[in-house]
Order: sequence, then structure tokens, then C-alpha cells
Amino acid sequence: MLMYLTQSLHRAMQRHPQQIATICGSRQHSYAQYADRVARLGGALQTLGMGKGDRVGMLGLNSDRYLEFFFGTWWGGGAVNPVNIRWSAAEIAYSLDDCDTRILLIDEQFKAMATELRSRSKALQTLVYVGDGDTPDGMLNFEAVLQAAAPIADAGCNGNELAGVMYTGGTTGFPKGVMLSHDSLCANALAALGAGITRSDGRALLIAPMFHAAAGAMMLAHAAAGGTFVIAPMFTPLGTLQVIQQHGVTHLLLVPTMIQLATDHPDAGQYDVSCVQVLAYGGSVISEAVLQRAMLRFPNAGFLQAYGMTELSPCATYLSAADHRGESGKSGLLRSAGRATLTTEVCVVDADGTEVPLGTVGEVAVRGPNTMLGYWNKPELTAAVLRNGWMHTGDGGRMDEDGYLYIVDRMKDMIVSGGENVYSAEVENALAQHPAVAASAVIGIPSDAWGEAVHAVVVLKAGVVVTEQELSAHCHQLIAGYKCPRSVEFRDALPMTGAGKIQKTELRKPHWAGHTRAVN
Amino acid sequence: MLMYLTQSLHRAMQRHPQQIATICGSRQHSYAQYADRVARLGGALQTLGMGKGDRVGMLGLNSDRYLEFFFGTWWGGGAVNPVNIRWSAAEIAYSLDDCDTRILLIDEQFKAMATELRSRSKALQTLVYVGDGDTPDGMLNFEAVLQAAAPIADAGCNGNELAGVMYTGGTTGFPKGVMLSHDSLCANALAALGAGITRSDGRALLIAPMFHAAAGAMMLAHAAAGGTFVIAPMFTPLGTLQVIQQHGVTHLLLVPTMIQLATDHPDAGQYDVSCVQVLAYGGSVISEAVLQRAMLRFPNAGFLQAYGMTELSPCATYLSAADHRGESGKSGLLRSAGRATLTTEVCVVDADGTEVPLGTVGEVAVRGPNTMLGYWNKPELTAAVLRNGWMHTGDGGRMDEDGYLYIVDRMKDMIVSGGENVYSAEVENALAQHPAVAASAVIGIPSDAWGEAVHAVVVLKAGVVVTEQELSAHCHQLIAGYKCPRSVEFRDALPMTGAGKIQKTELRKPHWAGHTRAVN
Repeated sequence: MLMYLTQSLHRAMQRHPQQIATICGSRQHSYAQYADRVARLGGALQTLGMGKGDRVGMLGLNSDRYLEFFFGTWWGGGAVNPVNIRWSAAEIAYSLDDCDTRILLIDEQFKAMATELRSRSKALQTLVYVGDGDTPDGMLNFEAVLQAAAPIADAGCNGNELAGVMYTGGTTGFPKGVMLSHDSLCANALAALGAGITRSDGRALLIAPMFHAAAGAMMLAHAAAGGTFVIAPMFTPLGTLQVIQQHGVTHLLLVPTMIQLATDHPDAGQYDVSCVQVLAYGGSVISEAVLQRAMLRFPNAGFLQAYGMTELSPCATYLSAADHRGESGKSGLLRSAGRATLTTEVCVVDADGTEVPLGTVGEVAVRGPNTMLGYWNKPELTAAVLRNGWMHTGDGGRMDEDGYLYIVDRMKDMIVSGGENVYSAEVENALAQHPAVAASAVIGIPSDAWGEAVHAVVVLKAGVVVTEQELSAHCHQLIAGYKCPRSVEFRDALPMTGAGKIQKTELRKPHWAGHTRAVN
Repeated sequence: MLMYLTQSLHRAMQRHPQQIATICGSRQHSYAQYADRVARLGGALQTLGMGKGDRVGMLGLNSDRYLEFFFGTWWGGGAVNPVNIRWSAAEIAYSLDDCDTRILLIDEQFKAMATELRSRSKALQTLVYVGDGDTPDGMLNFEAVLQAAAPIADAGCNGNELAGVMYTGGTTGFPKGVMLSHDSLCANALAALGAGITRSDGRALLIAPMFHAAAGAMMLAHAAAGGTFVIAPMFTPLGTLQVIQQHGVTHLLLVPTMIQLATDHPDAGQYDVSCVQVLAYGGSVISEAVLQRAMLRFPNAGFLQAYGMTELSPCATYLSAADHRGESGKSGLLRSAGRATLTTEVCVVDADGTEVPLGTVGEVAVRGPNTMLGYWNKPELTAAVLRNGWMHTGDGGRMDEDGYLYIVDRMKDMIVSGGENVYSAEVENALAQHPAVAASAVIGIPSDAWGEAVHAVVVLKAGVVVTEQELSAHCHQLIAGYKCPRSVEFRDALPMTGAGKIQKTELRKPHWAGHTRAVN
């Protein structure tokens, strides 16, 4: 046993029970109030049938109640299943059933999905409405459930016990449930604190989606530090700047797209965001031009890039604030994902798992206490990526002589659009279900707004006609909006390799001429 | 598995193989040279018979070779047994035999003890001379052994495997071997980095004895950060200031006695020590007066107090630099040991192990990943102190409403006089506030009337005179009558342990000859 996730709450209660724990809109809770709510929620979830290690889901925008969901589930001995808010009902139901999530918390924004989720999911038994409006029929009310429950003692889960199942897109076309333990999430938080991601006297803003591992890393590091959380429902450029100014936010995490949108908004100059000390980001590298403008917009912020994946709880490397400022004099560092965290080992290996020479491209492999337990119910898939303790990331990269990692391509066929991972296979699966489609290849093409945009190259069956709009509408019924093709190109055939594989490199070439594919 | 101790060396080799790793007198090694020496030493120790987990001892002053001893032993798969340099040959032989240490490294300073150690110890088989003079008969030469060996691959010990047996208890009777694991030492290093004890771009001075857990904590945190080590053989006031100035030392650890001696030396002003950023200390609290003077002497240093014990790898709490500067406005913080580290849980319990109310004195108990595996070969003693994962420290303390821990005394040092409990620290604090007092130690001595009477051993400042009556009157102004010394003895100096703690056992001895002391 290294640690346990609720340890941070006990620690905060010992140090500063009267300090503000959460600020969310007009609501504000001290650590004492927050801890009481967490202890009640833990008891309530047990009453609703949550046993040790049982999964509890949450589908909602960011809120203080989302934080309570995480810690209340752990307090009661359960494991969290934070649901991707971009997913379709079909995808969500699949993931709930996959890991047998019977209790789902759902907020105002998503309550309309409840009926469809209920009809699609076999596992789902209890829905808890986490909103301030009227409680929909057939749901329990979060606040009522909390008030009716007695605060319980911490169930005391820890170490290698299951703390969460986080779903990520799958190369096979199906989402995979990544099992993370108390130890792995705590180890990541310690390494993040060692990298200076946040401080105990800081006010950290949670505005990137809390279901996502990156926001989760900021959340758990700040919880370990025992600071104050400012929580905003979702990203908007001016909303972010406004909440930073209003609450004196010192630390936050965004994705580069969000940084660019907030920095370049025509009204951005109306807000004073000089309070920001650390602006962490992940999902992709940042362009030199955007960084320069962002540094002017956030004049006192150190920029910190994290690279990783959900399977690593999620951080493998950090690119430090000093590296962003160019203090080492080494050029090109902004194209790097940074260097191994305090607790991880990072190397680049060939197909046999042997380390390749410096500068040579291979697969990025990572080992450390933050590595996942495995994929839920997918031992073969787990064994394929987790070998001798090393997580094989599927990312192509190279390492330089100073330990900087450069991600040069993805081994897996994946597109990063607006900070979200889109696996081509999932989109191709959706397209294949349209009766007019004979074959398709989905690639990422350059996009100023999204880094990459999802682009589909489609071969139609003989004598059939379909429009780009029809294909897009078809996909929207099956998969999340961000995964759907933003553009479609019809061809008579796809370029193939001698081995019969689609040559995506050839498809990408014309789109990427003159661009650098900023992958990470 | 959390981590492994040699991980830091692999990490440094990935990041900066050409950076200076060690500076020791006129010797200097890059990380590449240092790593090569470590890999050779690992191989050499295996050749000398060190199997997995076997103990290897080192008896010597601080040096770069002492650092190589630690990491070379771990690289080769062994466990370190760093020997207390203040101990007699009898005590050392006892500890070597207790944990079956067959290989001992011994330096110039201690080579004269070799014959006696050999005759007293049954386990000892191989002596390696770690000095630059002629190799004594019957010993191997460290440099020759290193040059003859081939560098080997890291043995890969990790997690809960034994990393060291550190002997404690010189002041409490029979020495006990504290078994620490890779995980426990790494967890302590991570928490220390989270508390800001050192930085990757820092130059850390190792001048407090490296055999001791406190110096070891600084050493392992700095190794994890991958910084440069400056290593000096032993503490002298001017030697410390000189080496700080010469090498631009940024981080160091001392004990309060050392801080006072370096600060108050009449020639101290001749050295510029403004390069020091963090001055960590442990072993005892620091007096307000010494701290004020030390802050002037080290104008850019943040002061950081660590409280703990070898059994905790060793840190339980930290008193932050902000607390030393009085930033919270809370008074009396300098008498506190600080608050729980990032990874530990700290509470105060009664004899049944139940937590006592805030402000009540009880026994300090600590839980966390840094807790020892147990005492070597002493399962009953282990079971007595390590209960339900909590290490019962034997220290009396109380916790305040902000989570600050105050150590009131060793439980065993508590004086019971006339049925009242007197904690020596309270009396010593009162004495320290008299302008004539340089240092004091308060003990219980036999008394027909009171069972024990409070007795003070006092060292006066140079050139000052004060009577027993004046000191007594002074104390009566500050603390309850029953706590005031009933007798005072003036001395030139107090007997100290290797870790810089006052040896109260020595002070008590003459008084208790022929008496039995009732210790709880």
C-alpha cells in the first residue's frame, strides 16, 4: 500500500477544516462541509447497493457534486466510472454494461438521455439526479439522498484496490475500461506535485471536463495538496477568463485548443488573469505562436505540458515551465513532450521490446507505479500492451540525448481533435454500418481550430449514391459528435499496400503538405 | 511496487549524463562516471559474495564513496547497513552480527578499529579499505576492487524488498535494526520533494553524518531530483560555511546544534552563504533566538524542519519555511514539529491506540508508505510498535486544531514528580528564555520525597554568570512550580549522540546508580 485517495481529505480536515474546499457558481463549501457531504454520499451509495469495488457512474458537466461523486464513491469503498460526456447513448450504455455500473449520477444537462440509457443498458438500476430542478420521474434526488444518509466512516480502500474504470476509445472499435488503483492515481498525484502542477495555498480551476484523466490528474494533485477548488461547468473562452479573475485562480489545466481560444478571443483583454501561476496543458503540443500569445495573456503563468494516457493515470512526462521559457538554450523543445516524471521510466523500444538507440523512432513504453491494473475484462488486450511491467503506449516517438521525448506518430491509428482522442477504427465501424459504404479510411487532417479534424475517405458500393450530410447524420446516431467526420471525400478505391493494408500515409500526404503534424 | 532506489540514477543518466554528480574535496564525477562506478561496485560486491538482500556495511565519514556504497549495494541487489560512527567497537560488532553483515567498507578515519571489529564480530568476513593511503593488511582496496570489476546490469530490486538495515537505539538500550524497503525510502523522498527540501537544479551539501536517516532523506530526495551533490567529511562550523561558499551550495540539512555553531562562530561573517535556498533541520526544534540569528546568517534560506525517526524512513511531519517566517500569524509555531507530510498520516493516541482529543498529550502514531518493514529479527518488538499499520513512535505529543504536532517529550523521558507529569521540553524551553543559558537538558533524578525530582543540566554562554537560585526564580515566572528544577548543575557541554541529540541517558546514569527508575 502506497496511499489511498481519501487520505487527502483526512489530511485537509486535520489542517484546515474551515478553509474553503469548493467554489461552484454561488455554492461554496468549507472542507468540514465537504467532508460531511462526502461521508454522507459514501453511506448513501452503500445503502443503494454499492459494495466494495462496485462501479458508480457519473454523467455530467463539471460541478462540486462531481468532486463529491469521486470522493464519496471512494469513501464508501466503490470505484468510479466517470462517463465521457461526448459519447452517444449507445456508447455510454455499452460502457456501463461492460463494467456493470448499476448506479449512475446524471445532471441537468444530461437528464434527457436517461430514458434511452435505461432502455439500452442492462446493468443500470438506479439513477440519481444531480441537478437543481425538479427530479425527473424514476430518479432519486442527490441532495435528498445526501440529507437522508448518515455520515459513515471511511471504508479504507487503498493500495492496489480498484479505484476507477475510465473508458477510452478502442483500436478494435470498442471502448476499453482502464482499471486504475488507489496507488496508481496517488503516485501520479505525487509526481504531479513534484513537477509543480499546483500548491496547497493555490486555487485550482477545474474547467476541462472532469470525466477525463487529464482533469482528474489536476484534481487529485490539488486534493493531495489540500487547496481550494474553483469548479466551472464547462469551457468557454470568456467564461474561463471571467472565473479566473473573479476567484483569483492560480492553477489550471486546459488543452491547447482551449488556451488558443481563450487567448485569442477579441474580448480577452478585458479580464485580468495575472493571478494564474501555472497553466498546465495536455492532449497535444502547443504551437510556438500560440504559446507566445498565451504568455502575454497570462503574464505570470508558468506553462507545463503533460504527456500521457489514461492507462498511465495519466502522466508519463512533463515539459517544464523552464523548458517553455527556453532557459536551457536548447532549441525545438516546444515540439517535445518533455521528460519522464519523478516516478515513471520512459523509453523507446522496437517491436521486440528492445530499447532503440537515441534519436531512433520506436514505440514509447512507460513503467511506474502509475501504470494501470489492466483493461476491464480484457486480459488479452492487457497482456498485449502491458509487458514486463511496461505499458506500450502505441505512440511512436524518439528520445534525445537529454531525455526529451518527441512523439512523432501514433502507432495506433488515432486522431487528436480538440484534445479528444478519436480512434479511426471507431469511425470506420460507424461508416461501415451505412448500406451505401463499401470501404472507408478515416484520417486526421490539419485544422486551425482543432489541431486535427476527422476526415473520411469513402468508397461507395457500385451504383449507390449518398451525400456527405447523410453519412454525417448516420454517424451522429452511433458515435459521439466529436468523432464524426467533419469532411468526407469520395473515391473509387483506397490505396493499398502489397500486404493489403490501406496506405493512410498516402491519404494524409496532400493534406499535410506544408504542415507539421503536431502530434503528442 | 512503487519505485526502486536506483531508478533515480537511470533517470539522471537519461537526462544529463554529463552533469556533475558528486564533488568531494578535489574529486569530481559526472553522472556518467558515477553511474559507471556504481555499476562496477555492484558487480564487485556480488563477486565478494553479496547475494540478493545481503547486508553490506560502511563505517566512515561522509564521502562520494559513501554515496557509491549506497547505490552500488542497491545496484548489485544488496541492502545497506550504514554504521553509526559514534559507536564503540562492541556496539558496531553487535550490529554487524545481528543482521549478518559480512562485507564492511571502512575509511581512513576508522581503519584503526578494524582489528578489534574483526576479533569481536563473528559475521565479518571481508573488509574493504575506502581511503587514499596504503591499504592495511588483510583488507581489499576500494579503488582496486572497482577497477577490477566489470559494470553489471542493475539487479532490479524494488518495492517491498529490503533496501537497508539502519541501527537505532544507542540511547535506548540494545540497538535495533530498522528494516527499510525500496518503497518506504522512495515514498519518503517523494514527500520530501513535495515539501521543497531540494530541487533538480540544486547543489545539495551532505555534511551531517550520512549513516543517519536524516542525512539519508536529503540524499535520496536529491538523488531522485537528479541534482549535484557536494559532500564534506564531517561538520565543523567554519568548514561548513567555507564549502557552502566555495561550491554555491543551495540546499543542506543540519541539526539545530550545528546551525547554532555555524551561525554564532565569531568568524562566520567572513563567508558569503547567500546561495543557500533551503536549510532543512531535524532532531529537535530550534529556539526562536537561534532561528533569528540563523536567518540573518543565511539571508536567502527558507528553513524547513523535519520530525521523524528511522522507523519512518524517516519523516513524519514538516514545519514549512512559511511557518518559520510566521506567515500564518499563528504564534508558537517554532515549538511545533509541523504537519503531516504528503504521504503520512499522523495522530496522537492513548495507551489503547484510540485517538485523543485535540490538545491532549498522548503518543504520536504515524502511518504511511514510509513505515519500516519491522525490526530485524525482533518480531515481538515490531509487533509492539507497529500495530494496524501505525508506527507508535514512543514520543509524547499533542496536536492542535490546525494539524500542527508538538512533541512534548520522549514518553520515556517524561518525569513523574509527586504524581505530576513533567515534560522535559517545557522546562528546557523555560530555561532557554534566560539570557545566560546556552543549552540545557532536564532529567528526572531520584527523590525520596517526590519519586523523581526535576534536575537541570545547564551550559551557560561564555563569560556569563548566573546562580541556581536565579534560574529557579526565572522558571517560576514561566511554568508551574512543580515543573521547575529542584536542582541545577552547570557544565561546559552536553553529551551528544551522533545525530546531534542530547544523550540524557548519560546524564541520568550517575544519579540513578543504585536506584530503579520507574519508566512507563
